Amino acid sequence: MARTTISDVAEAAGVSVSTVSRALRGLDKVNPDTRKKVERAAERLNFSFSKSASSLARGKTMKVAVLLPNEISGWFNAHAFEGIYEVLSKQGYDVIPNVMWEQRDLDRFFKALPNNQNVDAVIVVSFDLDDDKKRILSELTVPVIGVNTPTDDGLDASARIDDFAAMRSAVRLLHSLGHRNLAYIEQPVVSPFLCSAEIRLNGFREAAREVGCRDEDVLIVPSVARAGGPGEQEEYSGIAAQLLSAPVRPTGICVEHDACAAALIKELRRLGWDIPGEVSVIGFDDSYIANITGLTTIHQNPVETGRQAAARALSLMRGECPSEPYAIMPTSMVLRDTTGPAVESEA
Amino acid sequence: MARTTISDVAEAAGVSVSTVSRALRGLDKVNPDTRKKVERAAERLNFSFSKSASSLARGKTMKVAVLLPNEISGWFNAHAFEGIYEVLSKQGYDVIPNVMWEQRDLDRFFKALPNNQNVDAVIVVSFDLDDDKKRILSELTVPVIGVNTPTDDGLDASARIDDFAAMRSAVRLLHSLGHRNLAYIEQPVVSPFLCSAEIRLNGFREAAREVGCRDEDVLIVPSVARAGGPGEQEEYSGIAAQLLSAPVRPTGICVEHDACAAALIKELRRLGWDIPGEVSVIGFDDSYIANITGLTTIHQNPVETGRQAAARALSLMRGECPSEPYAIMPTSMVLRDTTGPAVESEA
Repeated sequence: MARTTISDVAEAAGVSVSTVSRALRGLDKVNPDTRKKVERAAERLNFSFSKSASSLARGKTMKVAVLLPNEISGWFNAHAFEGIYEVLSKQGYDVIPNVMWEQRDLDRFFKALPNNQNVDAVIVVSFDLDDDKKRILSELTVPVIGVNTPTDDGLDASARIDDFAAMRSAVRLLHSLGHRNLAYIEQPVVSPFLCSAEIRLNGFREAAREVGCRDEDVLIVPSVARAGGPGEQEEYSGIAAQLLSAPVRPTGICVEHDACAAALIKELRRLGWDIPGEVSVIGFDDSYIANITGLTTIHQNPVETGRQAAARALSLMRGECPSEPYAIMPTSMVLRDTTGPAVESEA
Repeated sequence: MARTTISDVAEAAGVSVSTVSRALRGLDKVNPDTRKKVERAAERLNFSFSKSASSLARGKTMKVAVLLPNEISGWFNAHAFEGIYEVLSKQGYDVIPNVMWEQRDLDRFFKALPNNQNVDAVIVVSFDLDDDKKRILSELTVPVIGVNTPTDDGLDASARIDDFAAMRSAVRLLHSLGHRNLAYIEQPVVSPFLCSAEIRLNGFREAAREVGCRDEDVLIVPSVARAGGPGEQEEYSGIAAQLLSAPVRPTGICVEHDACAAALIKELRRLGWDIPGEVSVIGFDDSYIANITGLTTIHQNPVETGRQAAARALSLMRGECPSEPYAIMPTSMVLRDTTGPAVESEA
């Protein structure tokens, strides 16, 4: 007898596959009546919603696919992959990277995915997937686990930091030091699917409003950085020019990530700015460049985030339900030498 | 005309394909008469033995194993892996990392390798393999390609920089600036199989002798750095203390890699040393920390080295012989702000 699939349950209950998925996983936004209908259909068809169970039924391939945006050598991706690899390889799994450079790579991967499930799990790193792709993931018969994905939609488990809260803590630090004119150096859209950049920017905007900044006192400057790297040093003169020519010159600056913050500080100091005397700068990541350059930043541990995601993948592949499927990993503020009290403006 | 295959030779010599394989690779346990028969048939058919041919004969797994020492997230490994991945994934190959943390991981991998050849090629990154492991590699029926391996022994192809020559150029720069008392901060033995550290140290010693330094004017200081990272900043005080307390204080310092050089410079400046006024420091790699911190260093491009190795793997897997199997990748000196002329010692 063919295995009952989630589609069978959807058909029997007269609802969509994603509704079945959400109903059986106890997610919100499902009408109680609909949920009951789905549960009854599932019971009648002897369908237990566990992707891992179906994975066990299919037999093991001992392979796990890891989807990464843009590159594997960037600071976050390389360390997250390392954590994933460490946990899974010790259990005998091949960990197969799949780097998506462009939207069409992702489209192609997803198009092939349902027919090509020769893996026991899929781990998705830092992707902001559209609804169409979330649907494909939720219909896979193998567990899907997120690492720093913006939501848990369509995922069986995840591990991520709270980019929003972390950025809020940076803004609050600047505010508590007396800074009222703030700027944010954002990650450019180098990728159609990188997600953390947008969340951090939103966290910055929101937190700036919370501490009483008017929108006109907040400057958003696009950076030239690549994900995971600083880009070309020469291009930071453009960013510095935008900061210098702002109607109200910012004294507190948050930067999307450390490499970019360090490059900006280098350029500002070259132009004669005193950091932290005239302007404070906060990075994000606490990669080793932050330590070397004395950068105040927000610490995160992507190796551990990768490990936590992989541990959840292991549970699911064994047919167990992780006790805490969606983990929020800690971040913390590391105070070094690039932040200080605001001085009165001479303007 | 179709390319002559190993099967053609086997047929012509009246022996099995595996006998041809063993005979032409000079392995033991082949009867001398049989070997001669095989060699004559191969010569007549103009067949040059290539492991890739036997790989073709076995059929494709579309998988390539990449052996990496210690970690995948270190600067060199992550970028070399990225280059390898880029070339092979575009041709449809799964690129499977195998990180070796300890000698026993490597032993286990090699023990399983001959009986478990479910890959089309093996790429070995930065390993200094012992004779036993080289023998196992050379007996594999799939191509084996090196990335920054110390020798090409047992490898069908390789791509690597000349660590020795690169380090010599660093010593010559210091000498040309007038530095006569030199120091080298070496990579500690964090791994039983990392190779470039030793070659760089030998290059430094040799070049120092060439420019006329006496051995007593050359100080070798073990660093606390991990491969690919700087280690703990606090521990650089120990290195600085060794430099300060040396009978003849060095004015020119070569450091195994950039992250470690940047951390050392930070500590020396904290202690009040003027760099490059009193002491010149040269790193190795030209990772982005070198640019940010203004470090004079030796540039290498590990992504390109990985690509070149992977291109050679592709040729071999297709049954072709790469036109230049063993590539030496370029390095170059990048002069920034941490090197300058030696001043007369006051001692």
